[in-house]
Amino acid sequence: MKTNQITDFMQIAILQAQKAFQKGEVPVGAVIVQDGKVIAKAYNMREKKQNALLHAEILCINHACKKLHSWRLENCQMYVTLEPCPMCAGAIVNARLSKVTYACKQNTSSDNLFEEILQSNRLNHTCAFCQDKKYERQSSSLITDFFKSKR
Amino acid sequence: MKTNQITDFMQIAILQAQKAFQKGEVPVGAVIVQDGKVIAKAYNMREKKQNALLHAEILCINHACKKLHSWRLENCQMYVTLEPCPMCAGAIVNARLSKVTYACKQNTSSDNLFEEILQSNRLNHTCAFCQDKKYERQSSSLITDFFKSKR
Repeated sequence: MKTNQITDFMQIAILQAQKAFQKGEVPVGAVIVQDGKVIAKAYNMREKKQNALLHAEILCINHACKKLHSWRLENCQMYVTLEPCPMCAGAIVNARLSKVTYACKQNTSSDNLFEEILQSNRLNHTCAFCQDKKYERQSSSLITDFFKSKR
Repeated sequence: MKTNQITDFMQIAILQAQKAFQKGEVPVGAVIVQDGKVIAKAYNMREKKQNALLHAEILCINHACKKLHSWRLENCQMYVTLEPCPMCAGAIVNARLSKVTYACKQNTSSDNLFEEILQSNRLNHTCAFCQDKKYERQSSSLITDFFKSKR
């Protein structure tokens, strides 16, 4: 099935994460949707590009800003396979996304930084978030399998 | 005086912020130093590029990763005119910078997110930070004057 026929956006994010896996990257994928249409998708490219910034979410926001010719991604939502790190959470707020849906939680996060950043209101903008448990196991298995394969 | 003759790195960051001001950008500048040498410098380009990611710190980390061909910016320190936002604080930790020195604090920050992110230890890496009060007034005046000029 082509990705433009998929209406379950998290499934598109997972396809992106699978591409990352195949390329030896920590398998995380992200999609940005506006008015029910995918306007950007990306997967983690940190190792290939040797660049600490190139998480799936950052690449996705970069593509979307270029596509919309605007730093304000209004009425846009992100679907991402893994709960975003502080850098990506901050970028999501800076870009004014309205909502983030993630499939699995970071297992290293003893803190509550993701939620704190999205709800901090420092920019008079907060971003809603939720977990899509339907894809939780698939997303976390991808990451577990990836690290097993690297041992 | 040429920037390669300046050994006070915050002064170089302020020169970058002044360039941002001249170009109609919120005046923030940043520099990354390794072994006592400037390896990257940048200023905020959000408006010109219409891209929510392009804060001075992100551009600076991007330049440094490309220069060192590595996502790990080991033994590198950042000097930045304004206390970094959550996105930039997260990027600083992800890139494994060892220390950040900033000149003035964010006046919108009612939270403590900057310090929490730098010290969270989620990556088994924390980043030291301090404020360089010598340049506090100059950096904050640049920002205040910028917003006055926009009214």
